[in-house]
Amino acid sequence: MNYEALNLDEKFSRFSEHWSPRVVAEMNDTLFKLVKVQGEFVWHSHADTDEAFLVVSGALDIEFRHGTVRLKSGEMFVVPRGVEHRPVAREECKLMLVEAKGVVNTGNAGGELTAENDVWV
Amino acid sequence: MNYEALNLDEKFSRFSEHWSPRVVAEMNDTLFKLVKVQGEFVWHSHADTDEAFLVVSGALDIEFRHGTVRLKSGEMFVVPRGVEHRPVAREECKLMLVEAKGVVNTGNAGGELTAENDVWV
Repeated sequence: MNYEALNLDEKFSRFSEHWSPRVVAEMNDTLFKLVKVQGEFVWHSHADTDEAFLVVSGALDIEFRHGTVRLKSGEMFVVPRGVEHRPVAREECKLMLVEAKGVVNTGNAGGELTAENDVWV
Repeated sequence: MNYEALNLDEKFSRFSEHWSPRVVAEMNDTLFKLVKVQGEFVWHSHADTDEAFLVVSGALDIEFRHGTVRLKSGEMFVVPRGVEHRPVAREECKLMLVEAKGVVNTGNAGGELTAENDVWV
């Protein structure tokens, strides 16, 4: 076993691309991913998993068809499976996502913002 | 749906007991728990789940039989299932735990530090 702490800031320093989640840890069948986001993502949903968002720095709006959740550093929200949502960050936001293994970032929507899946950093 | 952010500091302010995890969110069959710890916990293991530790403030040592992981704020570690460990905090440490539903804090060890299970805050 490797007895080293996983430092989130150090992991964030290893990449700069937006909307491109990087896996940092695995727990049972759940992955912890770090992602930097800025601007508007696509409307999408994930049929098979809830998705937890934890804001590490900056702020994120998660828009839903009937409301918006506004998250800042130290705040989290769990988007239930099957619920359409659109993340929007007015400035760069650093996030931790926690979700089931095998989840594609754009869910049912696809398109050009679709990132390679389950890439570790 | 309730479109409110979950603020970790606000949730931590609602309790003061040590070694008494409080559930703040659920994602699939995984729970997010907040816990305040200080001093030495008991040696134990969890046969059926890995356990993720994320330090929100303070510092935590996770002792293993053959090594120690030293975590500070913004750092995390996943303890694999079945592996004996003992959390030790020299000063008060605020943690987020992420683990499967139904996990008892003292695992196989039991004893007086065993907390009521899956209590929400």
